[in-house]
Amino acid sequence: MLYLVGLGLGDAKDITVKGLEVVRQCRRVYLEAYTSILTVGKEALEEFYGKELILADRETVEQEADNILKDADVCDVAFLVVGDPFGATTHSDLVLRAVKLGIPYKVIHNASIMNAVGCCGLQVGYRSFQAKCCLRLHMTLASASLKMIGKTVASDVFTELYSFGETVSIVFWTDTWKPESFFDKIEKNRQNGMHTLCLLDIKVKEQSLENLMKGRKIYEPPRYMSVNQAAEQLLAIIQNRRLQGEESAITENTICVGLARVGAPDQKIASGTLEQMSTVELGGPLHSLIVTGTLHPLELEMLQLFPVAGSSFEQHACQRTT
Amino acid sequence: MLYLVGLGLGDAKDITVKGLEVVRQCRRVYLEAYTSILTVGKEALEEFYGKELILADRETVEQEADNILKDADVCDVAFLVVGDPFGATTHSDLVLRAVKLGIPYKVIHNASIMNAVGCCGLQVGYRSFQAKCCLRLHMTLASASLKMIGKTVASDVFTELYSFGETVSIVFWTDTWKPESFFDKIEKNRQNGMHTLCLLDIKVKEQSLENLMKGRKIYEPPRYMSVNQAAEQLLAIIQNRRLQGEESAITENTICVGLARVGAPDQKIASGTLEQMSTVELGGPLHSLIVTGTLHPLELEMLQLFPVAGSSFEQHACQRTT
Repeated sequence: MLYLVGLGLGDAKDITVKGLEVVRQCRRVYLEAYTSILTVGKEALEEFYGKELILADRETVEQEADNILKDADVCDVAFLVVGDPFGATTHSDLVLRAVKLGIPYKVIHNASIMNAVGCCGLQVGYRSFQAKCCLRLHMTLASASLKMIGKTVASDVFTELYSFGETVSIVFWTDTWKPESFFDKIEKNRQNGMHTLCLLDIKVKEQSLENLMKGRKIYEPPRYMSVNQAAEQLLAIIQNRRLQGEESAITENTICVGLARVGAPDQKIASGTLEQMSTVELGGPLHSLIVTGTLHPLELEMLQLFPVAGSSFEQHACQRTT
Repeated sequence: MLYLVGLGLGDAKDITVKGLEVVRQCRRVYLEAYTSILTVGKEALEEFYGKELILADRETVEQEADNILKDADVCDVAFLVVGDPFGATTHSDLVLRAVKLGIPYKVIHNASIMNAVGCCGLQVGYRSFQAKCCLRLHMTLASASLKMIGKTVASDVFTELYSFGETVSIVFWTDTWKPESFFDKIEKNRQNGMHTLCLLDIKVKEQSLENLMKGRKIYEPPRYMSVNQAAEQLLAIIQNRRLQGEESAITENTICVGLARVGAPDQKIASGTLEQMSTVELGGPLHSLIVTGTLHPLELEMLQLFPVAGSSFEQHACQRTT
């Protein structure tokens, strides 16, 4: 059996009980090491799991998938992934190859940034609002007719649905390559009233183009885009467009949320303007950035739990009127 | 301290190691019982955790939040949520109330349907494609110039980004209330090439309007929308619009994925046409439905691992040409 096991977002103890049992029973355990990082190293995981881990970087997974799957039809092999195995990466290649070899697979899910981002108080889901409107219903019963009530509830539920639009990825700009397509998507989400989760670029075990061309396996030091860097790129786009006479739906004053090390004990969340995001101090990786759309009063109240030091951003928030 | 602990999606052992330690150390442990369900009951959880659980239904959480938070400034209280604490519901009310009372809180994240849905092979994230394009780069090196390569990689990465658009919720229709707004959102996502995760309605501890008006605390039996019911509602909308001369971007032949009990040992995934979704047998709740947008060949290959019995849906898939 091939087990794909999510490790969650924080440290060694964020593995599920089921996942830990699997890891301890497997003959070989690989740790996927290129799409994300935990706040603890391989050694800390090995000590807690009581198992030796084999680091699987990009090359191993893509070029040596057969080695990873070797004998997995007769023994158990685990492939550990930070976050959820199907969070930021689906690992479809590995799964499809296993299936073709007749090797069964199982997935042990865990938290990933895609859902844990809700910790800042922005609505990933919807049910709390449904609950709220039922409560209001209780209180307005005396004065309303049966049919009217049904209608009131209905419209209320529908104005409060999901508030995140399409997720985007902000990539590191180079001297010669400064794409802006992520900005257009963020802008489109915002125009539709929706927040945008921006995942920030990770460069791990990347080769320079020169080394790549010469076939030299020399790797650049890992780089993780910070909220500051992401904000600077967004501000640059806003400036560029302004020079061209365009005013964007996103400005220096758009309310954003910077998140660092979500799920870890030293997690940091800071809400403020995009301008403030370019200088906010959030510490080490991984960072994510949210550009807000229309804020529900409850969302705004949550964001105010995490203000950028000394700031008051309420005046800039685009609030719902309901 | 108030702990919000995610339980994941399957059974008792899907709690994280960290979450289990917290539960065992808390003086009172509440189990949120209205937005989702595990495949095991309260008793199974109690036995595994070695702790008595207090069921917190909608009323308890909304009307007795102060009881939940009682003494949480001097002792530890846990609030357990199926999935992730900030997955389908943010529980912002509870958090804000705790903060106002000076009670610190901590979140222990876990998997939720919002990320685990990737198990069917549709891209929740993007990195595996980035990896793939680097691999292609390796093989095309000989014939390309440095600058050209940079461009090829760039465009490749950008065509393969996130494939899920805004999540929608499909609600139970009644005789007098048949909203279609979710359909418009699914259609919009599909027109943009994106898949739509449809969360299906849950009615737990709901009162009939009559009982509600008369103040009688008599509750309807719980209802969980099945993939069949969701598909039937979508098909009805397509029919309605056709009668009005409109041809929708979603048809009877649109490729969908039905998911049941994601994360549980008896999880079921079935891919096929929307028409097939109206009769596919997926067993007990919870169900979710995905309406696909444009399918990447790798996504299509993954979906073919889970075909509706005896079907071949390849001819209906809207494939990317790259």
